[in-house]
Amino acid sequence: MRILGLDPGLRVTGWGIVEAAGNRLSHIADGVVTSDERDSLAARLAQLHDGVMAVIDQFAPAEAAVEETFVNRNPVSTLKLGQARGVVMLAPARCGLPVAEYTPNAIKKAVVGRGHAEKAQVELMVRTLLPGADPARADAADALAVAICHAHLRASQRALLAGTTR
Amino acid sequence: MRILGLDPGLRVTGWGIVEAAGNRLSHIADGVVTSDERDSLAARLAQLHDGVMAVIDQFAPAEAAVEETFVNRNPVSTLKLGQARGVVMLAPARCGLPVAEYTPNAIKKAVVGRGHAEKAQVELMVRTLLPGADPARADAADALAVAICHAHLRASQRALLAGTTR
Repeated sequence: MRILGLDPGLRVTGWGIVEAAGNRLSHIADGVVTSDERDSLAARLAQLHDGVMAVIDQFAPAEAAVEETFVNRNPVSTLKLGQARGVVMLAPARCGLPVAEYTPNAIKKAVVGRGHAEKAQVELMVRTLLPGADPARADAADALAVAICHAHLRASQRALLAGTTR
Repeated sequence: MRILGLDPGLRVTGWGIVEAAGNRLSHIADGVVTSDERDSLAARLAQLHDGVMAVIDQFAPAEAAVEETFVNRNPVSTLKLGQARGVVMLAPARCGLPVAEYTPNAIKKAVVGRGHAEKAQVELMVRTLLPGADPARADAADALAVAICHAHLRASQRALLAGTTR
């Protein structure tokens, strides 16, 4: 089963596709979708949305997972991020995929084993857990981490019979 | 020329269609698009987006205008509103319409004449400026106010440009 991980941002949205077969994970692809800062907000939101739609068309994931957004920064940033997050999450939803959400700490815990791991450790573990993955951008590595988190929590949820993991 | 006004919200998004012919405005339609609070966030964003797309399909506006969002409330609300605003603005953008943004004060000033008018005054002026309009919901009245604001500012922008043309 293919999982699409997404790390939304208005300038740069990271994406990663991971295939989960039982407990085995493999790396399929990753990358970023960007928006042009010279364009209007509406045009930039359309660029992000279209970019994620193209990734779904190409790789046909069955489920999607998105990082839950920090809200404790400045409100203008929160609003921008919210707008980007909305159009990014909308893409899998419009394609009928379930979209799970995970907090940054849940993702770190699933990937590194500790909720307060540093960014560099997360990237290192992404490369370890997904042999062959070599994400060029941090946003793509973060998106792969979200996909790994969903693969792990999905699997443990199944093992625990039903999901109350979050 | 038909203008689509939008007042985004995750639970309720107001919309209004106004026709501008020179300085004359007329009311075409208004209403709200709602999302089901029992559904996932992704599903709710898809409901809002699909609802606005249906309005555009039905009334074929040429331009759209959206209220610029307050960001001085609590960050969780700002994030929610941002997500709703993103998918709502995306609808006209995906259809190739220009999407203008106006602050709440600019809208009040355009509709009532003062930037600090009360909500009830805005609604009253919407009914006065658009004979026949009887918006059932405050969100729909607000959306009509955004459309009126865009019609006025568009017109004055054009007059200013014409005045400086030699």
